[in-house]
Amino acid sequence: MNYPLPKSQWSVEAGDLEAYGRDWTRRFPPKASVVLFPESTTDVQAVVQWAQQNKQALVPSGGRTGLAGGAVASKGEAVVSFDRMNKILEWNPIDRWVRLQAGVVTQELQEAAVSHGLYFPVDFASRGSSQIGGNVATNAGGIHVIRYGMMRDWVLGLEVVTGTGEILKLQDNLVKNNFGLDLKHLFIGSEGCLGLITEVSLKLTHAPQDRHCILVALDDLRSAFSILESLRRTTTLHAFEFLDQACLEQVCAQHGLEKPFAEVARFLVVIDVDEKDLNRMIDLAEVWEAKKWIVSAAVAQNEKQIEEFWQYRELISESLASLKPYKNDVSVQVARVPEFLEAVDQVLTSQYPGVRSLYFGHLADGNVHINCVRGSSQSEQAFATQSSQLALDITEILNRFGGSPSAEHGIGLLKQDLMNASLQADRMKWMRGIKSIFDPQGLLNPGKSFSAL
Amino acid sequence: MNYPLPKSQWSVEAGDLEAYGRDWTRRFPPKASVVLFPESTTDVQAVVQWAQQNKQALVPSGGRTGLAGGAVASKGEAVVSFDRMNKILEWNPIDRWVRLQAGVVTQELQEAAVSHGLYFPVDFASRGSSQIGGNVATNAGGIHVIRYGMMRDWVLGLEVVTGTGEILKLQDNLVKNNFGLDLKHLFIGSEGCLGLITEVSLKLTHAPQDRHCILVALDDLRSAFSILESLRRTTTLHAFEFLDQACLEQVCAQHGLEKPFAEVARFLVVIDVDEKDLNRMIDLAEVWEAKKWIVSAAVAQNEKQIEEFWQYRELISESLASLKPYKNDVSVQVARVPEFLEAVDQVLTSQYPGVRSLYFGHLADGNVHINCVRGSSQSEQAFATQSSQLALDITEILNRFGGSPSAEHGIGLLKQDLMNASLQADRMKWMRGIKSIFDPQGLLNPGKSFSAL
Repeated sequence: MNYPLPKSQWSVEAGDLEAYGRDWTRRFPPKASVVLFPESTTDVQAVVQWAQQNKQALVPSGGRTGLAGGAVASKGEAVVSFDRMNKILEWNPIDRWVRLQAGVVTQELQEAAVSHGLYFPVDFASRGSSQIGGNVATNAGGIHVIRYGMMRDWVLGLEVVTGTGEILKLQDNLVKNNFGLDLKHLFIGSEGCLGLITEVSLKLTHAPQDRHCILVALDDLRSAFSILESLRRTTTLHAFEFLDQACLEQVCAQHGLEKPFAEVARFLVVIDVDEKDLNRMIDLAEVWEAKKWIVSAAVAQNEKQIEEFWQYRELISESLASLKPYKNDVSVQVARVPEFLEAVDQVLTSQYPGVRSLYFGHLADGNVHINCVRGSSQSEQAFATQSSQLALDITEILNRFGGSPSAEHGIGLLKQDLMNASLQADRMKWMRGIKSIFDPQGLLNPGKSFSAL
Repeated sequence: MNYPLPKSQWSVEAGDLEAYGRDWTRRFPPKASVVLFPESTTDVQAVVQWAQQNKQALVPSGGRTGLAGGAVASKGEAVVSFDRMNKILEWNPIDRWVRLQAGVVTQELQEAAVSHGLYFPVDFASRGSSQIGGNVATNAGGIHVIRYGMMRDWVLGLEVVTGTGEILKLQDNLVKNNFGLDLKHLFIGSEGCLGLITEVSLKLTHAPQDRHCILVALDDLRSAFSILESLRRTTTLHAFEFLDQACLEQVCAQHGLEKPFAEVARFLVVIDVDEKDLNRMIDLAEVWEAKKWIVSAAVAQNEKQIEEFWQYRELISESLASLKPYKNDVSVQVARVPEFLEAVDQVLTSQYPGVRSLYFGHLADGNVHINCVRGSSQSEQAFATQSSQLALDITEILNRFGGSPSAEHGIGLLKQDLMNASLQADRMKWMRGIKSIFDPQGLLNPGKSFSAL
């Protein structure tokens, strides 16, 4: 095969094909035909033009930390890695933005921003390997969405090579530009199906104040909304995360932690506010106790205790890993979370008696991670089959609640079944119409997200 | 002609054809063939299906407060007025959103939000007649963009009737939904060229603290950025608006106001911060004076004085009206505003010796309103011709600076010439491709924005 880049910029070594052919889902056997390492936008353009001539499917590849298989190459695709397009190109301190190549790693950007007296607030566990281009292509979220929004809210400009091989520059980096459609929003969350993102301009802000943390235990999630409302009116809220009793048990058992409260309660909520709001939060907590909205509350006494409180939330995924859970990343309207979880519980109890469920997530975003774990008497194979059916059943419930089968993770390969089961399926024809404009040959990430035919 | 709605829902009276055929531009003679008043989404769908059968061009019509001719019907189009789709449909206080029909007037929503203990922060002078659907279709901005963003940032969901006559429901109203493309962004700022917006769901927030105001006079706009930077680091900034000496003279002359300072300076900047930041702002102002960034400063002493300070900014448009200025609503990157205005001045002085220019705008957004006024020896007709050429010359400068010929107002009819002159023209083919998906017959607002052929 003739590749469109010099020998130093491609690899067909088995180790590379394996490593670059998969993402964090680990569910799809990798089978890439080549890994390409463009070093510039014109390299990327040459790759797309080569793909056009050879009808060669391309898979764009960032840090491959996705959880939906969007970066998997399992059908002989050529992987386009952005590892070598990792330069920060331009800082603009007055306008507060940075322009960079798509392959810059999230944490590198965060640290560079600090060294410029600025702050990039989108943050998640995969910060050490996820790349900015991938974050944009998946509209990544994280733990600060309540305060700072998703990637979409921080993208000021993009440069993209479309499936037609054209370079589309959307990098005016203007606060205001109503000169026609804002095309960049098409590429944010497109999972690589419309174009290859080569450069990104990101808005920056100033670092927030130090934060303070309170932990509350409660039995009825509906009370959590009263708490949320009181906080929103009078404090600057940074995080409002929840976990259920089962998650707490698992975290404490796996990491030898003590439980935060002697009293047993169904849910724990971890709340961060600005440090200046600390006294206000303490006053509020007394009201919450008086109104019996909460069972217990504890305000962190120092920096160390803030970290300890956050461990209950941050160690969940790691603590569950040995149980090999099936993860459903779903969202409903915030106010409907309690009712929705009751409906899921009801289906689980009646139709999946062996399966255990553990809930945690971003309560103020309506984003729940439903982790299902197989019963002790069940084989892995039987559980896998059951999990796929369960995901469809959850989608059915989501349809009743007007929810989404993918809050954060995207559709990728993993949720192709759910795409047809979801009421949101009626939008896919419009997305495919748009695909026909930007990638008429269907070269970019075929079979992923909305680009399945 | 058979219209698709009952007799009580259409009008061909001359007064209606005149009133509904034009917007605030007053530049294009109205010539509508009929005004239709749908009362429901299915009425709107019937209108589009009728238009398809009769190849009848449609012009969507909100409050018609636009400044680019986007809502003008000057070629026998049927006007689709949303005046009777003016109901607020649903409040969700926990999720903090409201769902409403497209014809609700901005100010009605603002007041209703307050009565629900909530706050809708997008605000502009046309609040008393502009409609939410039109605000979305034009991605309206206003005086609080620095704090709250544009309409785009507050749209949570939309319902749209596409040019194909289909009802597209994008109203999950979820904080997070990564299940494919976020199609609503296509309709925001589309100037009615892709679909007719029938319902809107808007995010709401809680009312901000009271604000406090400082007025500063300075000679070099570059110093304003140092001021901006110091405020952003330590205060919550709500407004950072500027006007030049010529605007100030005009406002004071027209309204019999005293000038704020004895000293003469080239620019006046009106700054709003949270009330809690007042002392901080006073300290900062001393620093600004010591560093000679400003000529004078005055902190408002009470509510009445805040209003007085804001008059200098808010009365500009009204004060200029009698001069019949040609308004250019442009944006560049924030840091480049001073250099850009110098380049505009240079062209004006060398090529348009009779013409006077007055500058004001949203400095922290890079959004400048360049108002050009004819010299005393010039006829109105000669000035009109010259203004069109001047707009092209300004576009040429914008191309050098990477700016936009439309920051807030859209393209509409008014900026068709500029569309071809702008470097941004190369994006129009993608927009037209998208148009071919949503409105293949070209029925919606033909000849406006990007939909010219």
